[in-house]
Amino acid sequence: MDRPVGIAFVGCGSVMSGPYTRLARQLRERGEVSLVAACDVVPDRAAFVRDELGIERFATDYREIITADDVDAVLVLTSMPEHGAIAKAALEAGKHVLVEKPMATTLAEARELLAVAERSPGHLVCAPHVVLSPTYQAIWRHLHRGDVGRIHLARARYGWAGPWWGQWFYRSGGGPLFDLGVYNLTTLTGLIGPARRVTAMAGTAIPERRVDGELIKVEVEDNFQITVDFGDACFGTVTTGFSMQSYRGPAVELYGGAGTIQMMGDDWAPEGYELWRNDIGAWQLHREQDPHWPWTDGLRHLVDCIRHDQQPVIRPEHAYHVLEIMIKAIESAREGRTLDIESTFTPPTFADDGDRADAHLLHDPTH
Amino acid sequence: MDRPVGIAFVGCGSVMSGPYTRLARQLRERGEVSLVAACDVVPDRAAFVRDELGIERFATDYREIITADDVDAVLVLTSMPEHGAIAKAALEAGKHVLVEKPMATTLAEARELLAVAERSPGHLVCAPHVVLSPTYQAIWRHLHRGDVGRIHLARARYGWAGPWWGQWFYRSGGGPLFDLGVYNLTTLTGLIGPARRVTAMAGTAIPERRVDGELIKVEVEDNFQITVDFGDACFGTVTTGFSMQSYRGPAVELYGGAGTIQMMGDDWAPEGYELWRNDIGAWQLHREQDPHWPWTDGLRHLVDCIRHDQQPVIRPEHAYHVLEIMIKAIESAREGRTLDIESTFTPPTFADDGDRADAHLLHDPTH
Amino acid sequence: MDRPVGIAFVGCGSVMSGPYTRLARQLRERGEVSLVAACDVVPDRAAFVRDELGIERFATDYREIITADDVDAVLVLTSMPEHGAIAKAALEAGKHVLVEKPMATTLAEARELLAVAERSPGHLVCAPHVVLSPTYQAIWRHLHRGDVGRIHLARARYGWAGPWWGQWFYRSGGGPLFDLGVYNLTTLTGLIGPARRVTAMAGTAIPERRVDGELIKVEVEDNFQITVDFGDACFGTVTTGFSMQSYRGPAVELYGGAGTIQMMGDDWAPEGYELWRNDIGAWQLHREQDPHWPWTDGLRHLVDCIRHDQQPVIRPEHAYHVLEIMIKAIESAREGRTLDIESTFTPPTFADDGDRADAHLLHDPTH
Amino acid sequence: MDRPVGIAFVGCGSVMSGPYTRLARQLRERGEVSLVAACDVVPDRAAFVRDELGIERFATDYREIITADDVDAVLVLTSMPEHGAIAKAALEAGKHVLVEKPMATTLAEARELLAVAERSPGHLVCAPHVVLSPTYQAIWRHLHRGDVGRIHLARARYGWAGPWWGQWFYRSGGGPLFDLGVYNLTTLTGLIGPARRVTAMAGTAIPERRVDGELIKVEVEDNFQITVDFGDACFGTVTTGFSMQSYRGPAVELYGGAGTIQMMGDDWAPEGYELWRNDIGAWQLHREQDPHWPWTDGLRHLVDCIRHDQQPVIRPEHAYHVLEIMIKAIESAREGRTLDIESTFTPPTFADDGDRADAHLLHDPTH
Repeated sequence: MDRPVGIAFVGCGSVMSGPYTRLARQLRERGEVSLVAACDVVPDRAAFVRDELGIERFATDYREIITADDVDAVLVLTSMPEHGAIAKAALEAGKHVLVEKPMATTLAEARELLAVAERSPGHLVCAPHVVLSPTYQAIWRHLHRGDVGRIHLARARYGWAGPWWGQWFYRSGGGPLFDLGVYNLTTLTGLIGPARRVTAMAGTAIPERRVDGELIKVEVEDNFQITVDFGDACFGTVTTGFSMQSYRGPAVELYGGAGTIQMMGDDWAPEGYELWRNDIGAWQLHREQDPHWPWTDGLRHLVDCIRHDQQPVIRPEHAYHVLEIMIKAIESAREGRTLDIESTFTPPTFADDGDRADAHLLHDPTH
Repeated sequence: MDRPVGIAFVGCGSVMSGPYTRLARQLRERGEVSLVAACDVVPDRAAFVRDELGIERFATDYREIITADDVDAVLVLTSMPEHGAIAKAALEAGKHVLVEKPMATTLAEARELLAVAERSPGHLVCAPHVVLSPTYQAIWRHLHRGDVGRIHLARARYGWAGPWWGQWFYRSGGGPLFDLGVYNLTTLTGLIGPARRVTAMAGTAIPERRVDGELIKVEVEDNFQITVDFGDACFGTVTTGFSMQSYRGPAVELYGGAGTIQMMGDDWAPEGYELWRNDIGAWQLHREQDPHWPWTDGLRHLVDCIRHDQQPVIRPEHAYHVLEIMIKAIESAREGRTLDIESTFTPPTFADDGDRADAHLLHDPTH
Repeated sequence: MDRPVGIAFVGCGSVMSGPYTRLARQLRERGEVSLVAACDVVPDRAAFVRDELGIERFATDYREIITADDVDAVLVLTSMPEHGAIAKAALEAGKHVLVEKPMATTLAEARELLAVAERSPGHLVCAPHVVLSPTYQAIWRHLHRGDVGRIHLARARYGWAGPWWGQWFYRSGGGPLFDLGVYNLTTLTGLIGPARRVTAMAGTAIPERRVDGELIKVEVEDNFQITVDFGDACFGTVTTGFSMQSYRGPAVELYGGAGTIQMMGDDWAPEGYELWRNDIGAWQLHREQDPHWPWTDGLRHLVDCIRHDQQPVIRPEHAYHVLEIMIKAIESAREGRTLDIESTFTPPTFADDGDRADAHLLHDPTH
Repeated sequence: MDRPVGIAFVGCGSVMSGPYTRLARQLRERGEVSLVAACDVVPDRAAFVRDELGIERFATDYREIITADDVDAVLVLTSMPEHGAIAKAALEAGKHVLVEKPMATTLAEARELLAVAERSPGHLVCAPHVVLSPTYQAIWRHLHRGDVGRIHLARARYGWAGPWWGQWFYRSGGGPLFDLGVYNLTTLTGLIGPARRVTAMAGTAIPERRVDGELIKVEVEDNFQITVDFGDACFGTVTTGFSMQSYRGPAVELYGGAGTIQMMGDDWAPEGYELWRNDIGAWQLHREQDPHWPWTDGLRHLVDCIRHDQQPVIRPEHAYHVLEIMIKAIESAREGRTLDIESTFTPPTFADDGDRADAHLLHDPTH
């Protein structure tokens, strides 16, 4: 595609107005996108998109904009329960779609989305976009080269105190697993491979919260310990919750037969990685090479793929697989038994990164 | 007791000859113990105990020494499957007993041991002795004071590449859970309280190993992910295996409603702790105050209790509870369901530590 | 000033095209500046400023642009030896000036610049802008509150392998002290106060280098150890050179009578700070609150001051004082004696930062 | 020598009663030494050495014991000003001598000691014994193999809040340079080579202190920044003082043309080392392999050398060279000029350490 990719935003809340707006502006400055339309159920958001992004066309019903001729790609950034329906409609309208996580909140809806994506000309890119981060890919290359051997055990962790806005976070279809744990599960399955089984414990650690200034009852589990069986006696845990105040330690740990590798920071904002190889006998600390990598990077990737007519490396089957694990984890916690995972997917692979400039010559990583 | 406590060793392998010997020598130098007898099924060990410890009395059958009048306390340091029977016999002989972990390898045997201990005049101190470490107790005090709020999530981890000696480690009654995971479970239940339920995944990650120079088939699970339900939506995981090469991160992490606290190093060899309190807004790093604390410290404690006629703070009910969790974890992994824990115990409490010398005046922590 | 501040760039090399361009674009997007003219001795740079920044007016002689009516502020980003003359001419033309470090390469020239600035209506903001970073100011506040007592000893360090472009870096008027050490000296004097004396050792550690593809002889010292006497038995060292490959440790350390405080990362790109207070007895780790703070921030500050008619907190007397220390340090190293510093200045002070949002609620520091 | 080495202690204060006593007991337990006599100017110490070490022979005048036939080696552990005279007398009596730092407090006295040692049959081992630590030697091997290239810059640091006992620490012949800085200077010169020149700043940061319960006036410099010229444009700094409360960062940093290596902890109690090599491009963290290495290790080494008739690797010429640097540093600070160092020495070299057991198999570093 020669002209800038026409972008329509559906959902103009905090995820859109901060992170995606920032990246969209950069892409527009580089002439890669034009921002043509926006939609939000709150009419007041029209002012924001006009003043901040110069978008004149605004609707409160997404159906009014997703069929427009100058819209090439629809970004679905609404609250979670709407994701599936909007993404499906946009694909059916022949558009490319980026949908924030989760792709849908039921497996049936997600399966339908996959089917539509299969026969639609548009790409479907489902967040989270963690497999795009340079640190994820560096770790993937180490694993692929066998630097730490076959993985036996893994741990991942992402939680925080929880939002004090958006009551839907604490109602059915919300919760920290869809919002936070989804990152860790995407990372672990991307790096290790598809899950075979899942078991979990979950509960409501903080039954009442003040959200949007109101004391509400929390209606979903806000606290999770999930264990995944990857086959061949390889097991990984994910710890997540709106019940953690702070942490200090690796985000993701992978224990293999010949070494250990771990991602620092968070998988959506890595701060380098650490590698132990038995044949070296020392921890190797790799600084973050791209501290400015944005977790919205799937947008850049989708635009690249549209412009250069390439398949995205983020695959909807991966998102579906992670969704199945999450839904089964909740079920497992409620039923007290381990559940089989039926879906599978092929993790993205990456070319060797060839020669890099020497790390000690990276003088100013801030620019 | 005015005279030195008479000690008999049962089992003179690597655990005895290194760690316990070192501490026993120090206690003897301070005049608190005399080392009066030793037993091992390998007759050659007689030379070691005579030459290194000056112990003349040696037997290959423990029954020959545990009844001797000058033996006050019996240290059971054999391989795991023997622990229960020897400890029981020594208690029945009216002796104090320190038994390495696990106290027994079946719940029936452990229950009997508890019953005997109940009616015996001797103390029963069951390893691991982690609740005695200054760092464990410092963390306990922070929890007790409410510095991090109620605990919602916890993680603990202890594994290594596994021993290349002792084939019994890889046969029934062995495995990393009894050998390593037992520490983490003792620590978590000590700090958080009794477990209500357990679920686990386990497998044999490395089916063949070279042990004592011989390639053997591994007959037990060597790789574990265990999740424990502590009630009130508080869940903890333990990751353990003879399948980890190295790690770098906290040993134990406790996530509470007002902060986070984590133990560095390992729970059997702590290297300080780190504390986040929301009301402070910074991580506080507490250096290890006693880098020489030995994980054999239960021996010193038992001797203290004998000499000053006090109850040990290490309680056999705690060891029994941990044993039940371990046995149920294995069962849970095999059956694919969450199992209830029936036993309970009262975690040890500690007095406030009062005023300490200022940390910056600790000039030479090596002595 | 109501309209955007008109900016002219003098010098369009790597410092301009990367770091300052990025910030200038952001300010333009916010409507705070317009980029009206650019100058470089290399005519080819005209294309860059036109294509990347939309600046049509370009000159190879700075005198052609610094007097233009629509230019409010001149950014002097040339190679070091030109700084003084251009900054002076721009001030004399009644413009505001931001000059990269060093403000001049001789004290006479710098003194003249100060005098011109004194009588000129324009502000003179001299890089480095380290006193603007939130981490610098947080440390200043701790010092000011007495959290670590009076400072007795300090260390600062900034070096790297050295540029492989720009042969002038290795000729008279270049060198790592003006290029790198200037940051540390600005930070230390800003935090501790004016220097009274200086002693130094310096030499040429790497006598030949490949620069711009050519093997050249290094004509200046590339390796420095500088010690500064701040009075009252307080001494600080600065270690700098084009002779360091990598480091891992604090950038700036301040040892006081009641504690220690240290800045992590580099003073031009801080990564938080660490605080020891004797009355707390633990290290407190403060995460970087603004990982995106740009070392070009003096431009934003200058624009703010112009728009709101305020005095910059970055004072030219500070830059002059640091220049004197640097020039005397080189002299001291050559002569083998300690030299007095004659100039002085008043370090910038900062208001209390009042109440902050709780640190644990900073969920996504990447945006 | 076949029989245990007969040891006499001269000076039974805190250095003797804690650190050296602990090691001496271990050596006695291994049958390598017998503790035959002790001396202290305080008659009360007789009880301590008899009760704790079983030493019956006690004198208040060292001349009474250093000539005894059963004394093979004399440990000089008195306060600093006495060191030189006692060491000299013991050497003249034909004994082996270990003397705590500094070997003497004037160069003339030290020169005489060297001359006596030259013609005496006894070894002279001068503290500090830092070159014996496994971590020092590992770093030496990396340097020797060229892993970080030629060293250009170095920093070392050791200080603390200062003793609240022993008023002589704060009088002429005392001070933190002789007490603390001596370690860093021994380490730097051992690793880099002899110094050519020195410059320093020093002062009395805390003019009054409470010592032994009494408020005293501090009569010596308690605060130092020292810079050493090693030739070939290589410069190192030592920061030391009774004016530092706590630190967190490497003890010793060595910046070379191809990488960086740094010792963690303190050079008298290392906690591993960290290595950057440009050709690897990551920091390698080497855990401390011998966390129990005692800074009194020169005693073990002296006993080994006596028993196996070998030359100690700790050379008195090294101690003399360091003493000259210290004395000249004080002079330099007072005079405000750089001073030449006249003495030189040959740093100890170490054989390759051959094959080591794999680091990940070190399961229990506590024993």
